[in-house]
Amino acid sequence: MSQPIDFYFEFASPYGYFASERIDAIGARHGREVRWHPIMLGAVFKQTGARPLMHTPLKGAYMTHDLPRFARYLGVPLTMPAQMPVNSLAPSRAFYWLDDQRPGLAKALATALYRAHWGEGRDIGEVAEVVQIAVPLGIDGDALRAALADPAIKQKLKDATQAALDRGVFGSPFIFVDDQAFWGADRLDQVDAWLARGGW
Amino acid sequence: MSQPIDFYFEFASPYGYFASERIDAIGARHGREVRWHPIMLGAVFKQTGARPLMHTPLKGAYMTHDLPRFARYLGVPLTMPAQMPVNSLAPSRAFYWLDDQRPGLAKALATALYRAHWGEGRDIGEVAEVVQIAVPLGIDGDALRAALADPAIKQKLKDATQAALDRGVFGSPFIFVDDQAFWGADRLDQVDAWLARGGW
Repeated sequence: MSQPIDFYFEFASPYGYFASERIDAIGARHGREVRWHPIMLGAVFKQTGARPLMHTPLKGAYMTHDLPRFARYLGVPLTMPAQMPVNSLAPSRAFYWLDDQRPGLAKALATALYRAHWGEGRDIGEVAEVVQIAVPLGIDGDALRAALADPAIKQKLKDATQAALDRGVFGSPFIFVDDQAFWGADRLDQVDAWLARGGW
Repeated sequence: MSQPIDFYFEFASPYGYFASERIDAIGARHGREVRWHPIMLGAVFKQTGARPLMHTPLKGAYMTHDLPRFARYLGVPLTMPAQMPVNSLAPSRAFYWLDDQRPGLAKALATALYRAHWGEGRDIGEVAEVVQIAVPLGIDGDALRAALADPAIKQKLKDATQAALDRGVFGSPFIFVDDQAFWGADRLDQVDAWLARGGW
């Protein structure tokens, strides 16, 4: 039996966005389900001592150069948001609220949220914005608002982040194929090749 | 006129080694000369506050997992050296000593040194090892030994490292194609595509 691919990402991560636009097609091509796991990378960084690329000397400047070029290379829209890094609590909690009952819809919402933020520059840190993006997908806005304040949902996101950390996740995107860890949007060709060849 | 491609690398960097095995073929395919520039990344890190990937929590462990897999993906030999990071003063100085008069030979020596270190695990931090690798290429061992102790050659490496830093180089490999900076062995496909399409 083929195990699902695990795709860990942070909504504030543009390279996670790039990966989100490719990973399901890669999984489908090789008959693998892809499970999505948004995490709070800031909480991970607190434990690893890392800091956001954008706030790292020289690398931040490089990133503002690399990102638009990478986006055009992939053919995905990119608008640099005013909020970097965006507060990803609301979008991540919205995902986990849906994920239990309707995982396909949770993924569709995550895709819509990523595109709104990185494709259009919208501030998905705002609950009102998350609701506005969710409603056209057939999601109940009032139920969503309630869920975002639900302690059980908050805990679920904390647990998911801790579980990722326990598994060795330290960045976004971070992908597991069987026992193989792949870090970065620039490893997706290797993920694809690994699945095609059954390893090497 | 097509400008040369500038390829900056550190001998202690395995991803620099991976890039060194591909960059000249990419340049040749698009009619571009590639100029090689070994640098002392430790001196760069002192100014940027970065530290070697290998000594970064979690990323070090990931790297020992990613490197052999990446090497097999590219089809290049890899043996993890006992010395990480290796002291790259001697190989870098040997390069700049040759580069003035015989740039083709300097590149051939750099390739041989990289393969000895990352392909076979040899300690190219040792002058005797550098000489042993150089002599079969037709390089005079005594002249090389003398050059490695020559203050003018030492200064040349310092100047090359400072010039790289002034240009914004902060990692290895680091490649400039016209005004475009590309960081990482995982950007070589984009370098190739950039040259093929004349940008995008």
